Amino acid sequence: MSDSSVSIAIWFLIGAALVFFMQCGFAMVETGFTRAKSAGNIIMKNLMDFCIGTVVFMLLGFGLMMGQDAVSYFCGAPNLGIFSDWNSFTSADAANFVFNLVFCATAATIVSGAMAERTRFISYCIYSALISLVVYPIEAGWVWGGGWLISLEELTNGTLPGFIDYAGSGCIHTVGGVAALIGACFLGPRIGKYERDKNGKVTKVNAIQGHSLTLGALGVFILWFGWYGFNGAAAQSAEELAAIFVNTTIAPAVASCVTMIFTWILHKKPDVSMTLNAALAGLVGITAGCSCMNAVGAVVVGFVSGFLVVGVANLLEKILHIDDPVGAVAVHCANGIWGIIACGFFACTGWGDDGLAYSLDSLHAGVFFGGSGACLATQLIGIIAIVAWTAALMLIVFWGMKYIPVMIKFRCNPIKAVSVAREQGWNGLRAPAEDEISGLDISEHGLVSAYADFLPTVPSYDGEGAPVDVTDVAPASLDLAPADSVKYTRISIITGQDKFLTLKDALAQIGVTGMTVSNVMGCGAQSGKTGQYRGVKTTMHLIPKMQVDVVVSTVDPGLVVAVAQKVLNDGQVGAGKIFVSAVEDVMRVRTGETGADALTNENGTAEG
Amino acid sequence: MSDSSVSIAIWFLIGAALVFFMQCGFAMVETGFTRAKSAGNIIMKNLMDFCIGTVVFMLLGFGLMMGQDAVSYFCGAPNLGIFSDWNSFTSADAANFVFNLVFCATAATIVSGAMAERTRFISYCIYSALISLVVYPIEAGWVWGGGWLISLEELTNGTLPGFIDYAGSGCIHTVGGVAALIGACFLGPRIGKYERDKNGKVTKVNAIQGHSLTLGALGVFILWFGWYGFNGAAAQSAEELAAIFVNTTIAPAVASCVTMIFTWILHKKPDVSMTLNAALAGLVGITAGCSCMNAVGAVVVGFVSGFLVVGVANLLEKILHIDDPVGAVAVHCANGIWGIIACGFFACTGWGDDGLAYSLDSLHAGVFFGGSGACLATQLIGIIAIVAWTAALMLIVFWGMKYIPVMIKFRCNPIKAVSVAREQGWNGLRAPAEDEISGLDISEHGLVSAYADFLPTVPSYDGEGAPVDVTDVAPASLDLAPADSVKYTRISIITGQDKFLTLKDALAQIGVTGMTVSNVMGCGAQSGKTGQYRGVKTTMHLIPKMQVDVVVSTVDPGLVVAVAQKVLNDGQVGAGKIFVSAVEDVMRVRTGETGADALTNENGTAEG
Amino acid sequence: MSDSSVSIAIWFLIGAALVFFMQCGFAMVETGFTRAKSAGNIIMKNLMDFCIGTVVFMLLGFGLMMGQDAVSYFCGAPNLGIFSDWNSFTSADAANFVFNLVFCATAATIVSGAMAERTRFISYCIYSALISLVVYPIEAGWVWGGGWLISLEELTNGTLPGFIDYAGSGCIHTVGGVAALIGACFLGPRIGKYERDKNGKVTKVNAIQGHSLTLGALGVFILWFGWYGFNGAAAQSAEELAAIFVNTTIAPAVASCVTMIFTWILHKKPDVSMTLNAALAGLVGITAGCSCMNAVGAVVVGFVSGFLVVGVANLLEKILHIDDPVGAVAVHCANGIWGIIACGFFACTGWGDDGLAYSLDSLHAGVFFGGSGACLATQLIGIIAIVAWTAALMLIVFWGMKYIPVMIKFRCNPIKAVSVAREQGWNGLRAPAEDEISGLDISEHGLVSAYADFLPTVPSYDGEGAPVDVTDVAPASLDLAPADSVKYTRISIITGQDKFLTLKDALAQIGVTGMTVSNVMGCGAQSGKTGQYRGVKTTMHLIPKMQVDVVVSTVDPGLVVAVAQKVLNDGQVGAGKIFVSAVEDVMRVRTGETGADALTNENGTAEG
Repeated sequence: MSDSSVSIAIWFLIGAALVFFMQCGFAMVETGFTRAKSAGNIIMKNLMDFCIGTVVFMLLGFGLMMGQDAVSYFCGAPNLGIFSDWNSFTSADAANFVFNLVFCATAATIVSGAMAERTRFISYCIYSALISLVVYPIEAGWVWGGGWLISLEELTNGTLPGFIDYAGSGCIHTVGGVAALIGACFLGPRIGKYERDKNGKVTKVNAIQGHSLTLGALGVFILWFGWYGFNGAAAQSAEELAAIFVNTTIAPAVASCVTMIFTWILHKKPDVSMTLNAALAGLVGITAGCSCMNAVGAVVVGFVSGFLVVGVANLLEKILHIDDPVGAVAVHCANGIWGIIACGFFACTGWGDDGLAYSLDSLHAGVFFGGSGACLATQLIGIIAIVAWTAALMLIVFWGMKYIPVMIKFRCNPIKAVSVAREQGWNGLRAPAEDEISGLDISEHGLVSAYADFLPTVPSYDGEGAPVDVTDVAPASLDLAPADSVKYTRISIITGQDKFLTLKDALAQIGVTGMTVSNVMGCGAQSGKTGQYRGVKTTMHLIPKMQVDVVVSTVDPGLVVAVAQKVLNDGQVGAGKIFVSAVEDVMRVRTGETGADALTNENGTAEG
Repeated sequence: MSDSSVSIAIWFLIGAALVFFMQCGFAMVETGFTRAKSAGNIIMKNLMDFCIGTVVFMLLGFGLMMGQDAVSYFCGAPNLGIFSDWNSFTSADAANFVFNLVFCATAATIVSGAMAERTRFISYCIYSALISLVVYPIEAGWVWGGGWLISLEELTNGTLPGFIDYAGSGCIHTVGGVAALIGACFLGPRIGKYERDKNGKVTKVNAIQGHSLTLGALGVFILWFGWYGFNGAAAQSAEELAAIFVNTTIAPAVASCVTMIFTWILHKKPDVSMTLNAALAGLVGITAGCSCMNAVGAVVVGFVSGFLVVGVANLLEKILHIDDPVGAVAVHCANGIWGIIACGFFACTGWGDDGLAYSLDSLHAGVFFGGSGACLATQLIGIIAIVAWTAALMLIVFWGMKYIPVMIKFRCNPIKAVSVAREQGWNGLRAPAEDEISGLDISEHGLVSAYADFLPTVPSYDGEGAPVDVTDVAPASLDLAPADSVKYTRISIITGQDKFLTLKDALAQIGVTGMTVSNVMGCGAQSGKTGQYRGVKTTMHLIPKMQVDVVVSTVDPGLVVAVAQKVLNDGQVGAGKIFVSAVEDVMRVRTGETGADALTNENGTAEG
Repeated sequence: MSDSSVSIAIWFLIGAALVFFMQCGFAMVETGFTRAKSAGNIIMKNLMDFCIGTVVFMLLGFGLMMGQDAVSYFCGAPNLGIFSDWNSFTSADAANFVFNLVFCATAATIVSGAMAERTRFISYCIYSALISLVVYPIEAGWVWGGGWLISLEELTNGTLPGFIDYAGSGCIHTVGGVAALIGACFLGPRIGKYERDKNGKVTKVNAIQGHSLTLGALGVFILWFGWYGFNGAAAQSAEELAAIFVNTTIAPAVASCVTMIFTWILHKKPDVSMTLNAALAGLVGITAGCSCMNAVGAVVVGFVSGFLVVGVANLLEKILHIDDPVGAVAVHCANGIWGIIACGFFACTGWGDDGLAYSLDSLHAGVFFGGSGACLATQLIGIIAIVAWTAALMLIVFWGMKYIPVMIKFRCNPIKAVSVAREQGWNGLRAPAEDEISGLDISEHGLVSAYADFLPTVPSYDGEGAPVDVTDVAPASLDLAPADSVKYTRISIITGQDKFLTLKDALAQIGVTGMTVSNVMGCGAQSGKTGQYRGVKTTMHLIPKMQVDVVVSTVDPGLVVAVAQKVLNDGQVGAGKIFVSAVEDVMRVRTGETGADALTNENGTAEG
């Protein structure tokens, strides 16, 4: 090994370590942008997709991707040389193994974000293993393992150039993004994300806010940092690496600026989490062409990415009604495809006077840099092939994971499985509704909370509850003191947090719109939820509840109690208690009104 | 490129990536050391100063700093070679571009900490762009771009040596710190930081605690890690790099030990956040001389930094009454200057037998290492020039940003703008008071909370409210039951969180000192605050409120209600409601006293 | 310096920076896995063990470890060459100093996790300094400084090979783990961890959950990332580094998979925090043999580590009743020893056709790779020596720190000190019980909270209170309205958070099992706790309290009040207040029962 190649070889491994660190970035982004009640689950997924991926990539994937060809140009022959034949498993193999493994894990981990908060953990483990085992290795082998896409020039006798995907806009991000999109479709949106009318038409889109934007931002910074390794690890010279660093800096910076300004115009205020996504979008976009574009290309790639991430996120969320909690599809799928296509326009055949960048022959030139369009044609062929391959396999994988358990559980045939799953509200991919509502931490991992010392707040600031008909509710017969001694009545309702929105809407129907809500903990005769922490059983004697206090004068307290009971009674132990007590007087601070006036609005209907 | 220089060139870029990662460290430090209600805003600032900085540095700054001289030794000629002339934009340019960009962004990001929680976001974007566009590139060009400071030996015919600022104690940290100081002065302290008497004299300094010391600590560790790249990236040999690593380790370690012991003696307990700052102070201090000092120098630099950071932080906070939430001035400005001056004393002309460190001629020797004082003279000249340049430009920038919008909005001339701004309580730099109180996340970004699943607590543990005269308040006429059936009265006040301190003080004046405070959420007829999250509108039906419960016997409940109304009534919808109800009996646990005795203290006045 | 060695030398320093970054990982893991009330303290410990370690390692440790031999093969001669003799302190020394320092700090920081939440900060500073000053340098010198363990082949005339501990499973992790084990034993478990009967026999093990699993996971990812430097920094070729990276990836991945599956079987659900620990366990296990094992060895090491970490954690927690909050003993001690022994089985003398790995002579071969057992013998001798050395010194250190202050304070002799310490409930190592309950942040650092803007919840979901005999409690004589106007009575108890479990159990004895608990803040006549933040005094006017609301009908309200007073009255100001008020009616939501029925369970006893 020559001297200068030692530094290139060491950098290759440092780059791989940086790509590994991106797992941390993904974990933080996905956790921060989702809710606290599933934080432990998301962390576990991000850790395990790497760990399971390592095991299966070691056993099969690495051979499929890089082994000597079994089927020419399609895939390699699996082998266990890493274990048995260590005289032929060379150091180049070792470095390649680590390098390709960390890239493979990136493709797998992208999916978890789009499917967060509602996927069964066991299903996650299985499909994540399948991606690292088969889906990724074969298509990545097309590009990086000597497969047909990289060999297109040879296969077409020089008509088309080889596919350009230097660091994986296509083979990694598009693959992860397409799988994420299909997974999110198969799963359906999180409970509460969309409100629908009786025909199932969406009437309102609710934002479900992430629980920690600082964790999300931490993740984005870590990802950007790691991306210098992601894009740069394979550089063959310091000159090439410098060019890659320039592009890997310019594209996300431009994308962030564009998105900031675009959301500022669109929503009157610059959106923090979308701008964080935009940085990632720019990075995904420049990944394919990071070594073959100059600064003009990087600026254009970033510019388009900045719009694309906002547009696709909105398209999915507001028009297609696909719930992608962290924006994985908008970031990785859309910008991955864009990055591949952009090479067809902006690939240039060398810039700088000293062989700065990746050496490309003129056949590879983008159409804006003297190319004939052959490069663009290859890029389109390649990205269509990658999307088609991923979509085909992931459709099979997700269909099987969703419906095969239904076929087993309900003993039905594949044709019927779809309708049985819908009728039963049960499938193999999605966690049961009650698990999703309580959070996957407790249901999947027995973890009471990822934040044991903090009090979670009422989880949803927004949205509407289920429709409740209160017109036929008769007032409860309460044992109240004579009217002259009880002037105003406080109704204190202690119940679980999940019914709040329905309760609020139902009370509004009987004229009660003002209320005070507190996070309390209930401690009852029942023993509480049981969890575990590091193998030790934990019993939640204190169960998170909410207390809703309403004070009424003209509205019949018995009616309030009866409506609340109707809404809250789910037949379960722990449905709640309602306490009725007397209030002597009340004042509205702004106006100084006291008595019943303080409880009524100008229109005379609202109480509180 | 020779073989060994490949590894140096690659390390140069790895170092740049580490410096990029320091953006993450700054984001975490600044977010952790400020309040949760502006966390999203600080993250956005830290992301955007890098992204905007990249765009403007690409367009203009890089040329000003490194381009061929336009004005000899003062600044370079801007050019867009990075875009148009890629045959002359070499790989060395590419590496330099990334390297200088990440350093430039560091200078810009330092400012945001000192100006946190009260600066308009648009103003931040503008001044941050100006720093990266003009302020930093020109003075950094003096030192690193072949400008007059580095060329001093040539310009003075060998009388004075060139300026020593190896990695930027002066050109980066002092610049950022001086800008931070001027910015903090122009902005004024955060609401609640200082209590003043009628003449405006400060009567009390309140601590405003950061919302997450773990994030702050994470940031400090990331910064220290990144600093090995910051100080080391430009090393020309492995030997030099080793010496730099030793110094970059010793100085912050010594500074942290000194500060820990110093605060332990000063305040009886070792202060966590100040010690975290001390590590950064030691790093800033050693930055200038990291390659030309030996361990003795590093120890002394760290030792002084440990005292300096505490002293300057106290000077600003307690004597000058300048509010610097994260200690940016104490860390970067004070220790930046100290680091430059320290080179005049401790620079040595080579240590180790194998050319360990930066090769300096004897003219550069510090006065404690055989130098004549010429080096010290240069260092003083240089730091005075840098401070003066930065101060002059930033005074113009901040003055303009503060008052030009006033001139436009109120159609006044520059002379009057200052007094108009004061009268109107409005200027272009500082966010309106109501935005600051509610937090910049909601007001600037429409972000309801950076921590949506957690309940923020009453924001201030400390401080006093505004003075309220309660002597003339007449009791409200409440409709209470006859005295024999209502023995004790509970007054439950539901109101916004920001008036609590004033309410507490006002109630104390009428003899009520005990109270129970809960964080609740109000849900009223008004539609609540509207925010956005990733482009989807969010409506806060539940608005954070606090509930203050007071139980009185001898104090007139009507008086409590009237005083509370006077304090809380700001004429806004949502000012609050007051509920009055009966309490049968009360017991003080410690003494077992029941009834009125349980509500009165030994001195007979306090109720609760 | 030859050209290729430049890249090796630079990588050596980059590796050291990565190891430094592991300090951040340890800080995050330890903080995340412990409670919020001591978060600032743990951060401070993690920062200061590095800073203090740097100072003492610079003064003495480095010389002891690497200096020319004072006592042959035992330790080096301390010298201050780094300061005085900079002509003989070469660049190799400089690089070695940084490298060995960061490793030394790792050994020291491991201890803090096992001793978290209950150790006096001053004691931590002292023992941490002693580890870096003497304990670590001498034994590490045996292995890495030319001491007897590495020289065993020479000393035994080729009978035994030198000790294999490539990156420190033994000299670092086992040392840290053994010190952690001894420290945890000397300290005893945290208050509330174990419930005991009258004979001191443990009747129940309580889980004390960490306050942020996301921080813990962040730490694990950072540690794994840094471990590529930890294991790889000393690699002498790119080939060797590649092999190290493969092993450093496989072992933790396999360990995590094993632990996930093992806990899934054991507890029916995959345990998040134990799986995170498992990744670290696999990393510790492979550290010794990372360069001399092939993939088979790495798989086996990881496989065993995955079981070992669960088994040892359970052994300590459930059988030995040693409280190790973060699993430091299970991770570092057990797997450190395992890693050393594993080399005796799996060390191979070169794999790959191009000198992939660490070059070992055949004497070093593990028994499964053609070795005679000599290597295994050396490994056993070495690990026994390291454990014995560490145990001996740390027993002395911890004994002295625990009892010497007792001897001074109570003027007793060493023989009596143990019993005096037990009688007085006071020793030099452990923080006083009241400090532990309130959290070390406020007691040791005057820091009111590391999370000032968040409301901490009632700290313990689990556990039982102290036994209270309520059979002799007479009802308090309350001044209640006549029975016909007060139908149900609400007793609102405002008190500190620490007595809740005892109160709950006591109330259950008189038939009250239902209650609503809220986190409130009390604001009384007393001035509150005083803290400091960055040198500014902070006064907590609002003190965290809890409010327990009970509504009773058939149970005598006076009895509830009397029992509550008995439990809560600790004679301190701030013990609490109890308010009694009337409730008109009550409904159980599930059944629609109103009145007394709603308060009683099927068995007729429970009220709420």
